Amino acid sequence: MTIAEINLIERLTQQFRRSPLQVNRLQEADAEIIRLDPRGSVCLAVTTDSIVEEIASGLYEDPYLVGWMTVMANMSDLAAVGAIPLGILISEVLPDGVPQDWLAELQRGIEKACEACGSFVLGGDTNTGGQLMLTGCALGTTSRERLLSRTGAHAGDRLYVTGFLGVGNAFALEHFMNHHNGPGETVSYQPFARLREGQSIAGIASACMDTSDGALTTLDQLMRINHVGFEIDSDVESILHPQARLAAEGADLPPWLLLAGQHGEFELMFTVSPENEMKLLETADRSNWQPFRLGRVIRCEEIRLPLYGRETVLDTGKIRNLSAECGSEIQRYIHELCLIDTTCKKGALQYVYS
Amino acid sequence: MTIAEINLIERLTQQFRRSPLQVNRLQEADAEIIRLDPRGSVCLAVTTDSIVEEIASGLYEDPYLVGWMTVMANMSDLAAVGAIPLGILISEVLPDGVPQDWLAELQRGIEKACEACGSFVLGGDTNTGGQLMLTGCALGTTSRERLLSRTGAHAGDRLYVTGFLGVGNAFALEHFMNHHNGPGETVSYQPFARLREGQSIAGIASACMDTSDGALTTLDQLMRINHVGFEIDSDVESILHPQARLAAEGADLPPWLLLAGQHGEFELMFTVSPENEMKLLETADRSNWQPFRLGRVIRCEEIRLPLYGRETVLDTGKIRNLSAECGSEIQRYIHELCLIDTTCKKGALQYVYS
Repeated sequence: MTIAEINLIERLTQQFRRSPLQVNRLQEADAEIIRLDPRGSVCLAVTTDSIVEEIASGLYEDPYLVGWMTVMANMSDLAAVGAIPLGILISEVLPDGVPQDWLAELQRGIEKACEACGSFVLGGDTNTGGQLMLTGCALGTTSRERLLSRTGAHAGDRLYVTGFLGVGNAFALEHFMNHHNGPGETVSYQPFARLREGQSIAGIASACMDTSDGALTTLDQLMRINHVGFEIDSDVESILHPQARLAAEGADLPPWLLLAGQHGEFELMFTVSPENEMKLLETADRSNWQPFRLGRVIRCEEIRLPLYGRETVLDTGKIRNLSAECGSEIQRYIHELCLIDTTCKKGALQYVYS
Repeated sequence: MTIAEINLIERLTQQFRRSPLQVNRLQEADAEIIRLDPRGSVCLAVTTDSIVEEIASGLYEDPYLVGWMTVMANMSDLAAVGAIPLGILISEVLPDGVPQDWLAELQRGIEKACEACGSFVLGGDTNTGGQLMLTGCALGTTSRERLLSRTGAHAGDRLYVTGFLGVGNAFALEHFMNHHNGPGETVSYQPFARLREGQSIAGIASACMDTSDGALTTLDQLMRINHVGFEIDSDVESILHPQARLAAEGADLPPWLLLAGQHGEFELMFTVSPENEMKLLETADRSNWQPFRLGRVIRCEEIRLPLYGRETVLDTGKIRNLSAECGSEIQRYIHELCLIDTTCKKGALQYVYS
């Protein structure tokens, strides 16, 4: 199954030449990696990310969060290529008559996120428009010796993640439920770009991508790019963020759906060869963080998850396209995901009784 | 008089720390100039510019032009700091159901503009939103030895420009008139970023800024930053683009108003010390372009233009703010500009008869 988003990007870029200084190919790295000169080792990492749908859908109402996410979404792309950030440019489209204190909160979110990343706003642009919209463009440095991108995963590699999963989808789910059941916000969502982690795995990990679009989207994308599959051998409950487990329980949904939604948690998902695994653990320990082992890279191009007592193959292509198909019809989106879950359950029962 | 746009930018950035690697201060360069390391000479130039109001107002209807301008507006900022472009990132907000061929034209405009700049699209982001909106983020390289920014103009310097002025405002004026008088487009507007020119004046010019917001806005901004004034000694008719002269004639407007509007022509306006003037002319000649001398830098913080037979001091602060005050009320905007012209004319008559 082809992915609507990948098709769109391929269509949009088909007329474009590639820079001879660009190291990565289309969609093969979270940030673009550009050599500063044809022979040198220093590379720039650059990326752009806009916060549009999250504002339009009402998911991000808090101006501080809008500012925070504009920075973090971009910095997370730098993290996934192991870059050291130089800073970020912010282009803002502001509706007429935005209140002063609202605007101050937006800017505070931007600044605080930069501080958290040890980085700076370098510049920007301001425009007036019908709807609030923010675009960030982050840049950083890396080198040819420590390149990290989405490509390079091989069967036999181990699959790791920098933290618990599902909190982005828990936040989105709660927002949606509250919309129907009245307020009562409990999920706190304020992801941190994993810059330190990305820098410490550069040169060690074989491939890396951030989970900005959710865990299963990340695995699906890594699968397509590397022509490998992934077998998760950890229990879903054990890899979910406590807030995600609670959100699934509260909404009476199967917990694994919090890996399926597209509102990510901005962890790094990465692979490492068996030879480099010890080096990874030592380096992480020295940098004072804990990689969490999810499973392994397999030869067969599929995503396997332990569900209902057996290893289940998930149609992650279908799951990814659901989001584009359903658009803003969240109820329908969740319903369709539940139908996929039912099929998994049925398959598991058949397996048990066969 | 303070400028609404400058106030907004100062308010938006007041909470932000500056990067110790950033060479320029707030608003003092068209592109941000960042040292790659604290001791090295290599600098990055980065800038972001969104095309929002021009689309929303209907001024840019042709998708090719939208794509072209997204690239050129950003590349022009690189030109104004003398940088060599590495490439551009493009973030696109596309309304649902954009026709395929329309989208292809948009992308063709982007690619052709990149080709014209000897540059490349490096990456981007795509979102769905209510209204078409494009944000570019261009990056390039320069060095500490050939820094070029808006600061550095001194009284006694000469004022130059890379080409005729007013074609951007001619295009906007014609669009507005057609809107009222029916179609008949004649002004061709497809500006080129003056990259070659910017690169050849870096290290020679004392200050530089592009005319992306129109000629008078550029002079006003250079005046405020450098605490100097400018005396134009060329006839307005002689510095206007032929299309601008025709547009003024067709609309029965005083020609100098085509310097006042805020839809620019993306030329470079720059100053050069008397000692460097010969070097400038020689360098330009070797690079096969012709700097056009507009006038000189004066000690007094005002903009002087020869109008109605005498040197007239223009209130460029008032002229700049008019655009923000009138917003999309173009008729009122032109009316207000004409009132300023009437005052100039009256002043000139009083001068003649006194």
